[in-house]
This record gives sequence, structure tokens and C-alpha cells, in this order.
Amino acid sequence: MSMRKFAKIFGGAAMFSALPAIAAAQDAPTLESLAANDAFVFNTLLFLIGGFLVMWMAAGFAMLEAGFVRTKNVSMQCLKNISLYSVAGLMFWVIGYQLMYNVSGDGAGLFGMPGIMSFGGPSTDTGYSDYSDWFFQMVFCATTASIVSGTVAERIKFWPFIIFVVVLTGFIYPVVGSWEWGTGFLDRMGFSDFAGSTLVHSTGGWAALVGAIILGARKGKYVDGKVNAIPGSSMPLATLGVFILWLGWFGFNGASQLALGTIADADSVAKIFVNTNMAAVAGVIMAVLYTQIRYGKIDLTMALNGALAGLVAITAEPLTPSVPVALLVGGLGSLLACLTVPLLDKLKIDDVVGAVPVHLVAGIFGTLAVAFTNPDVTFMPQLIGVLATAVFVCIASTIVWFALKFTIGLRVSEEDEYIGLDQAEIGVPSYPEFVAT
Amino acid sequence: MSMRKFAKIFGGAAMFSALPAIAAAQDAPTLESLAANDAFVFNTLLFLIGGFLVMWMAAGFAMLEAGFVRTKNVSMQCLKNISLYSVAGLMFWVIGYQLMYNVSGDGAGLFGMPGIMSFGGPSTDTGYSDYSDWFFQMVFCATTASIVSGTVAERIKFWPFIIFVVVLTGFIYPVVGSWEWGTGFLDRMGFSDFAGSTLVHSTGGWAALVGAIILGARKGKYVDGKVNAIPGSSMPLATLGVFILWLGWFGFNGASQLALGTIADADSVAKIFVNTNMAAVAGVIMAVLYTQIRYGKIDLTMALNGALAGLVAITAEPLTPSVPVALLVGGLGSLLACLTVPLLDKLKIDDVVGAVPVHLVAGIFGTLAVAFTNPDVTFMPQLIGVLATAVFVCIASTIVWFALKFTIGLRVSEEDEYIGLDQAEIGVPSYPEFVAT
Amino acid sequence: MSMRKFAKIFGGAAMFSALPAIAAAQDAPTLESLAANDAFVFNTLLFLIGGFLVMWMAAGFAMLEAGFVRTKNVSMQCLKNISLYSVAGLMFWVIGYQLMYNVSGDGAGLFGMPGIMSFGGPSTDTGYSDYSDWFFQMVFCATTASIVSGTVAERIKFWPFIIFVVVLTGFIYPVVGSWEWGTGFLDRMGFSDFAGSTLVHSTGGWAALVGAIILGARKGKYVDGKVNAIPGSSMPLATLGVFILWLGWFGFNGASQLALGTIADADSVAKIFVNTNMAAVAGVIMAVLYTQIRYGKIDLTMALNGALAGLVAITAEPLTPSVPVALLVGGLGSLLACLTVPLLDKLKIDDVVGAVPVHLVAGIFGTLAVAFTNPDVTFMPQLIGVLATAVFVCIASTIVWFALKFTIGLRVSEEDEYIGLDQAEIGVPSYPEFVAT
Repeated sequence: MSMRKFAKIFGGAAMFSALPAIAAAQDAPTLESLAANDAFVFNTLLFLIGGFLVMWMAAGFAMLEAGFVRTKNVSMQCLKNISLYSVAGLMFWVIGYQLMYNVSGDGAGLFGMPGIMSFGGPSTDTGYSDYSDWFFQMVFCATTASIVSGTVAERIKFWPFIIFVVVLTGFIYPVVGSWEWGTGFLDRMGFSDFAGSTLVHSTGGWAALVGAIILGARKGKYVDGKVNAIPGSSMPLATLGVFILWLGWFGFNGASQLALGTIADADSVAKIFVNTNMAAVAGVIMAVLYTQIRYGKIDLTMALNGALAGLVAITAEPLTPSVPVALLVGGLGSLLACLTVPLLDKLKIDDVVGAVPVHLVAGIFGTLAVAFTNPDVTFMPQLIGVLATAVFVCIASTIVWFALKFTIGLRVSEEDEYIGLDQAEIGVPSYPEFVAT
Repeated sequence: MSMRKFAKIFGGAAMFSALPAIAAAQDAPTLESLAANDAFVFNTLLFLIGGFLVMWMAAGFAMLEAGFVRTKNVSMQCLKNISLYSVAGLMFWVIGYQLMYNVSGDGAGLFGMPGIMSFGGPSTDTGYSDYSDWFFQMVFCATTASIVSGTVAERIKFWPFIIFVVVLTGFIYPVVGSWEWGTGFLDRMGFSDFAGSTLVHSTGGWAALVGAIILGARKGKYVDGKVNAIPGSSMPLATLGVFILWLGWFGFNGASQLALGTIADADSVAKIFVNTNMAAVAGVIMAVLYTQIRYGKIDLTMALNGALAGLVAITAEPLTPSVPVALLVGGLGSLLACLTVPLLDKLKIDDVVGAVPVHLVAGIFGTLAVAFTNPDVTFMPQLIGVLATAVFVCIASTIVWFALKFTIGLRVSEEDEYIGLDQAEIGVPSYPEFVAT
Repeated sequence: MSMRKFAKIFGGAAMFSALPAIAAAQDAPTLESLAANDAFVFNTLLFLIGGFLVMWMAAGFAMLEAGFVRTKNVSMQCLKNISLYSVAGLMFWVIGYQLMYNVSGDGAGLFGMPGIMSFGGPSTDTGYSDYSDWFFQMVFCATTASIVSGTVAERIKFWPFIIFVVVLTGFIYPVVGSWEWGTGFLDRMGFSDFAGSTLVHSTGGWAALVGAIILGARKGKYVDGKVNAIPGSSMPLATLGVFILWLGWFGFNGASQLALGTIADADSVAKIFVNTNMAAVAGVIMAVLYTQIRYGKIDLTMALNGALAGLVAITAEPLTPSVPVALLVGGLGSLLACLTVPLLDKLKIDDVVGAVPVHLVAGIFGTLAVAFTNPDVTFMPQLIGVLATAVFVCIASTIVWFALKFTIGLRVSEEDEYIGLDQAEIGVPSYPEFVAT
């Protein structure tokens, strides 16, 4: 249909007569139908804006990881990131969404699951478009996978990684998510995780940690008891990645309010924006001060990860805290991330981008902290949620990682690792004209 | 006026009394005026959000092309992209919009055209702000020009390229657009192109293809019957570009619904988001699988272009397909793009970034596919639309490219091509401190 | 609370019954409460969208500056940009917002200031969420600091710079802002600065200029009466930065309308989008033409800065001008910036990124031009606003810069400047694998 024509013919008239579908039977809108119409549009718009901001986080992870790996693995990291976002979208449609929300639609997804295939007309009983909800939930699923790719970079083969993402986004993440957001046992127990410090970030973090352990460290990282820092190829790209993630987080946390139609909801979304921002602010400042004091020089990579750790920590509860509390949560999340980095090195666990300190450690902290920042939440359910996620994700990930290791293999050959995955596996160098040292 | 003051003085009162202009004569809002007011704001907001997302695509093209050309031409590619976006905005204001939509306002544009100069107060007869509509349509015009710049990169002079953009954005694109979105003969015939697979992407693609043929290939690309791959300078920038384009496409397709004020419209926009995303998802997965199977290694550049081809293909009809159909359309669009790349090389047509496979081939496919995905559309009008666009754009482009070739010249000297356009034409090296091989 | 659960349980019902808080006492919404509710949500949404777009400008400045400094200072520039955004957020919360708007809440900020601590429930007397307003104003404060960091790059120490940002964002900017947006003397006098050509851009520009003078030029920039151009490390990153800033500016100017709930407001926001875009368009085209004619080659860096100068110039009044006038304002702003660059070199003032020509000169011009583009504004108040800002910011900045210079010192040692701030101060090289010339 012609764009302008549509607007010309239907636009004007539509304002008065083509109001909500539920009012279609009537000659004119009623106050109730108008209120329902506007709430539906506001809620759907919130999901769409939040959704495209979180989708944009996929680019943030891609840039962060492209900046933190070496030149010889940058193309591969780009390929993994665009591929994992695609696989996550596919798997969350094939099975993940149904598994997570026990959707009982009239259509059927693959594997006999009811669900997403029943996407159809606007359903007004929820107050938002089902499509917008699916889109918003899908980008969360993709985020979980993004967290893994950075940690296991520079030595994992492409296809085993992708297969892991298939299982993670189609099964592991949706199962954990179902416990809480799918109104499962954690939800019934009183566990609270507003936008996913545990469900998204810790889930990704545990999967990443197990992967890093099973894969082993990159060649040359730990030699004769010494830790060799392996600097990333591009700090400006890593910085860009963090700014993208910070921006996307307004959608991640803000749209997790799930409604925008009322004054109360709009004010909540706005408060979440402020708290989310301030937690990141505290994360940066904490990391800058900590590395200055501890090491005598500021570590840019920790300042970047500090922002992310602050964001992860506030994600479990960005609504109830006052600003000073949000600053405290973000600052402590960042501090814990700063302290975890050397700890991982001591354990010879090679986390290329620092996703474990940022997403797992700050995620656990943020989840537990809810007991102190939200008066309706107590500590035990939070702890149980953290532990249940830990146990399930670690076991499931271990099984998948090992299954891959002992079948098609996880790790590239030593020679391929030396020449870099770009040349070994994809044949497209990242910066072909720049002389690498 | 003081920002806060404005808000303080008028904000509170405005909520009740300063409602829609059309209600200004009344003492209090009526149900009808409130419904009209809210629909107007929602529709305008959709155009503005969609508009800034599509504007952002200009940055996506800039990064994609900066990543795909060699170091010595990167500054030039940046200059061309910011310049073409500017020229497109100017030309679409001077004449393009009037030409495309036969606007008969009371003011007069340049060349005696009626139109845009009559921008004035809010016009309530369409249900949205004319300014927001113009902004949204303008960024589509700019996209058309962006498509061309990548194909003809690394050997075309700056000024002839800019003059071509002047004609493309002021005349060629608006004429094609008028046939359908300006309610012209294609629209009357039943042709359907929801967001521009043909009107935007094929138009840009044909102009690019003709340009590439007339310009000839870059030196060294085809030598003694052998095709020499010329790798791009930065894969992370190209990847960033694709993520930006993917993000922007939610605005490109989603806001092409042209209305957001009702439950039905909001649900449609949400469905478009999902289908748009899934077509890109299928595009990536298809290209990854195809290049793995066909070449034994995955080609990152094809994965990136696969995403774009999927997006282009779904653009002609992102609303009516179910998710599996959207996946199919995106996947086939990507496959066709993958198959076209070697074909162009066989024909010695040098398309630096692959815009012809992505925008032209996937655009044609997507347009024809509408006959099978939208029950209200038949095949012949789609074919006629594709052919009419092909004939007109090819003829018009040929005339302009040749006129430029035989007057000021199109192509830089062989020496300038060797040293690169950055040094030859603009004197600002892209990466002055990096040693290029 | 469970995300989905929340939506499932409350979503549907909320559409009808959980309407505005102010209607909570009533059983059903009234026409007035619905109108107030929708206006509140629209206004808050405008602040949030505008706010995240302006927040994104922090990434734009980071990329612009990362592209314009040399490789050896890129990590430092990234660190400064993420840090200044964080410090600005903290200081604007601690004291800046209260100082600027003389907020008299019932809570208390630090230093006994009334204010932001009273963030609490939704306040319906303004028609928007206070949180959203604070967020939107905060990102403006951060922008002011971003302007400074580029000018003084490549030779200022990290900590003195951060301390300057503390004073700038906590004190200098809020004081200037209070004169106009806090309904101070400039506002009462009839001064008009819609979105901050003076309050934001000139304030940042003056602080930057004074800093550059007190710091002195980079070693090697002015030698034996000769000006040595010091090319930036990455033109594509600088280009990306400008596209980000351009995108963000739609929020910067558009959301400064401060209201979206009515047809008139929505139309105004849309008109501001168009004028903002066209001023940038004219800025690019002017700089391209000027540098082509004046130097025989187009200077990409000036094309980029031309876009920004056009944007800065229109910022003082993006609403009242017609499109041709917006083009004129943007074009002249760009031309003045082009003319200022060599002038600064003549004065041996070393402005690394050109922030003084862009933000100060175009900002002054844009502010004065309002007298000719807005019929309600006269010249003298504009001139007084420009001068008052100049005098106050220059004096305050001079005091702070000198205080820092004679205590902890402003400038790195000659050796540190030679080896670069990345190695000297933070120990994280920006591109460790690329051989720098």
C-alpha cells in the first residue's frame, strides 16, 4: 500500500473513527476504549523502544569484544557476535519463548510446543502487543549469549561456540527465566530480579565461567606462574562498546517496568533511568579511584568494566532505591569486579574481556543487594535464586561444553591460535593493511 | 524562552486546558478532541523516532563503507557519506518532496514548485505533523544515495559523485517514489512496496550498478582474467555499520506503518519489528551456512551483507508475513546476494561494498515475493514496478553518469587512484600514524 | 517482581482502572484525568527519549576526540570522556540541579541545598516526571564538560582535568544556566536561548578557550612561527562521532520543547527536528565549499566541524525559523567556524579538536542571530547574555585553571607529552599492535 496514500486516505479519518479495535463495533470511542487504546499504544511503544535499545547492545558487545581481543581475532569476534544475535533470535522463536513463559496459544511451535506461532491479531487482554513483548524478551535472550562470547574468545572454534549458543538461548536461559519471569518456583518463593542481574547476567556469566575453565587459558597468558597481560587491539572500539551498552541499558532496565500508560508507570520508568545512570556513574568513578590507588595508574579497561559492573548490579532492582543507594550499589558492584579480575588470574581462568567479574560477580551482588534496597524482598529467596541459577547453569553448561569438547572439539589447534582465528577459520583479516607487531 | 520556566508556567495548566489546537475554541477538551490529539501525537512521534533511526543509517553506511574500502580511501568515503546525506536533505527540500508527493500547498518551493515552503502551523487534516512526515521521507531519500556511494568507491572523483547525488535525490528517486507513494501509476495498478525494496533499495542499486559499469573496475581488481580480492581496511567498522543499519531498519520498516495511534497500528508496528528482525536473522544464518559449505570458510563480509540482504528483501512487505515466511524471505534474499557476488566478478563489475547484490538483487526479489506473502497483491503489478524502476533509473542514471564522464570526468587519474583519494583529493589521511602495507 | 507476571496480572486491568494517580480516588477515569495522564506520559517520554539521545552524545564526543588526537593519547581521551560524563552526573545530582533551578523541595541535597533528594513519587503539578526532567537536564550538563575535554587534549593531566569538570558541572554551568533556565536575570531581561547555544555550548567553549591559553600549545604545534598540523589518528572514528552528535542533537533541541502532549507541541518538536537537521546540512555544505574554494582541497575535519557548527548555531532558536532561515543560520555558523580555525593558529591557541570555533564562535553567533529569527526577541538582551556568560565563565575558569596550575599542576611533563598520556598516565595503549609512525 502506498505510504502517503495510506496516510492521506485513512490518516485524517482514523483519528476519530478508526480508534481501538475493541471499539470497532461502536460508532464512536468511549472514554474507556480511548483509555484502553492509549495505554496499549504506550505499553507497546515502551517495549519497542526498549527493545531496539537492547538490540543495540548486541553492537555494544561486538565493539567491546572487538576492542579487547587481538587484531588476529577481531573478525572472528565480529562474526560470533552477529551470529549469536541471529541464533538467539531464531531459537527464542523456535522454542525459548514458549519454554520461558509456558505460553498456551492455539498455534504450535516446533517440538510440539504451543506458542509463538499463534502470533496473530492484536490481543487486548494484556494491554500491549504480543509482538512487542516477544521482541523485548528476545533481545534479553540474545544479551545472555553475548556475555559468553567475550570470555571464551581467541581460542574457541566458531561452530562449537554457535552450538553452545543454540542450547543456551533455546534451553538454558529460558529455563532459568521461567523460574522467575515465567512465574515459576523462584517467583512464587518471593525472589525478585527486576531486569535480570541473575536471570540474564549471572546466567551468561556462569556459562562463560564454565566455558573458560573447560577451554583453558590462551597460550601465553599464564607462563611459569606469571600472568602476562594480553592487551586488546583497540581501546576506542572498547570504549564505544561500553557507551553503546550504557545507552542500551536504559531500555534494558527502563522498559522492564513493562508498562508506560499511567503517570505512575511513566514516573517509574524515569526513576529507573536515573538510577541506572547513577549506578554506572558510581561504577566508573569507583574503578578509576580504585585502580589509581591500588596500581598507581588508572586502568581504562577497568573504568569501562566498572561502568558495566555498576549497570549489572543495579539491574536486579533499579526502581526502589533512592539515588544514593543506587550509587552505592553501582559502586560496590564495580569494586567487586575490580577485585575479581586478579582473583581469576590467580586461578588461571582466562576471561578475555572480564565478563565474569562484570556480569557474574556484580550480578550476584546486585541480586543479593535487593534484599536491602527493596523493602518487599528478603534475603533467603535472593540467595536461593542465585544458588539455583548457579547450580543449574553450571551443570547444564558443563554438559554442553564437554559434549562439544569430546565430539567436534572446542578449541582450535595451537597453530591456529597462533596465527589467529581470522586467518584460520574465516579467512577475512580484520585490519589487513595495518602492520601488527 | 526559558526551558524550565516554560515548563513550570505552562506545563501544569497545559495538561487540562492547552489541549489540541482544534479544541482551542472550546473551554474543555471533548472526547473527540482528546482522541484526535493523542492520535496526532502518537503518529508524529512514530515519524520522529522512525526518522532519527533512519537518519542513523547514514552513519551505518559510512562505517560499512569506511570498513570495506582501503585505508587510502577511508577519509574520502567518510566525506562522501556525510556530504551525500546533506545534499539529499537539501535537494529533497528544494524539490524532491514536492515532485514525489505532488504537494499543492499555498507556498512555493524553488523552480515554481508548490510545496514545502508552506510548512507552517500544525495541519490536523492528516493526523500527523507535516514536518515529521517530511523528515521521515527525507531520510529515505538519503538512504537511496547512500547505497550508491559504496559501489563506486575508491575511484570516483568527489564532485561528480556529489552532482550525481543532486540529481538522484532531487529528481530520480522522487520520480520513482511518486509512481507509488505519490499515488502514481504503480499505485493505481496495485503495485505494493511497503517500505521501499524497490523504491529505495532497487533505485539506489540500479544507479550504483550503472555507475560501476560506466566507471569501470578499480585498477588491479581484474587482471589477466583473475579476480583479485581487495580486502577492506577494517572489519569491526564494517560490522558496526551493519549493526547500525539493522537498528535503523526498525525505523525504516516500522515507521512506514505511518500511524501509531490505534491498537491495530501499534500491533502492526510491533509485528513489523519482529519480521524485520527475523529476516535479518535468516540472512545472517543463510550466509554463514552458505559460505561455510560453498567455500569451506565462513566469509564475515557475506555474513554482514547477508543481514542487509535479508533486511532489504523483507522491506517490500514486513507486515503480512508470518514469522516463518519472514525467515524464508530474508534467507532467500541473502542467498541470492551470496550468489550474485561471484556473478558480478565474472562480469567484471566492481562493486566495492556489495551494494548491488544486497540492495538491487534482494530488493527485486523482495518486491516480487510480496505477491506470495500478501494476499492482496498479485505478481504482474510487482513485476511491472520492478521493470519500470529498472528502465527509468538505468536510463536516467546512464544519462547523468555519461554527462559527467564527458564533461568534468568521473574517474580520478591512475596515479591518484594509486596514492588514494584521501591524499589526492582531500589531503586528510584516515589513519596517518598506521603503517599501511 | 516477575516481569511477565506483573504484566499478566496488572496489565489488562491497569488499562481501565489503574489510570493516573490523581484519578486514583475515583472509580473510573474522567476525561480530565485521562487528558492529564496522557500529557504526563507524553511529556515524560519526550524527556526520556531526548535524554538518552543526548546521553549518546557523550559517546559522540568520545569518538570525535579519539579520532582527532594522536594514537598515543587515544586511551586517555576515552578515559576522560567516560569519566567526565560520570562526574557530571554525580555533581549535577549533588549540587548542580539545585543551584540551577533553585529547587525548593522538602528533602535536602549535600551542602544543605534543598532539592533532588526529594525525588519521590510522581508529582503531577508540572505535567512530567521530575526524574525525567533531571535526567534530561543532567545530560546537558555533561555536554558542557565534553566540549572542554577535546580542546585541552594531549597535554593536560587526568586529575586536574577531572577537578575542573567537578567545578564546571557542579558550579559554573549551573550558575550560568540559572540565569536563564532557572528564571534568573537573563530570563527576566528577555534573553532567549532555546536549547543552549550560550548556556551549554559557549559556556563549554569559554572554559575550553581559557584552558587552552593557560595550558599552552602542544609541543611541536607552533615552531619558529610555523603552524604544524598534527593529524588525528582516525578519521572514521571522528566521522562516527559527528554522526552520533548529529543524531543526539535531535534530542538536544527537540526535547527542549519540554512538552509533547498537544498537537501544537508535537508539531513544534517535529519542526525543530527539521530545522536542526537543515542547519547541520548547511554547515556541511558550507564547509565543503569553503575549504574547496579557499584551499583547493576539501578538508574532511572542517566538513565534520561544519556540521557541528551548524548544529550549535541553530540551538539557540530551532523553532521559529523557516527552513531557509535555518539553512542560513547553520551555513553562517559553519563559515564562522571555518574562519576561526586559522585565527586561533595565528594566536597560537592550540585547540586540538576545534571546539572553540564550533561551540564558542558558532554558539555566540547563533545566540545573537535569535534577534533576527525570533520576532519576540531583541538584540540587546542577547548581547548581554553572551557577554555575561563570557565574563563569568572566563573569570571562574581562569581562577580554577590557575588554582590547579599552581597547586597540583595542569600539564604533563615534556617527556610524558612526548611518549603520550596513554603510557605516561594510564598504562593502557590504545592500539598496542599497530606500528605508529
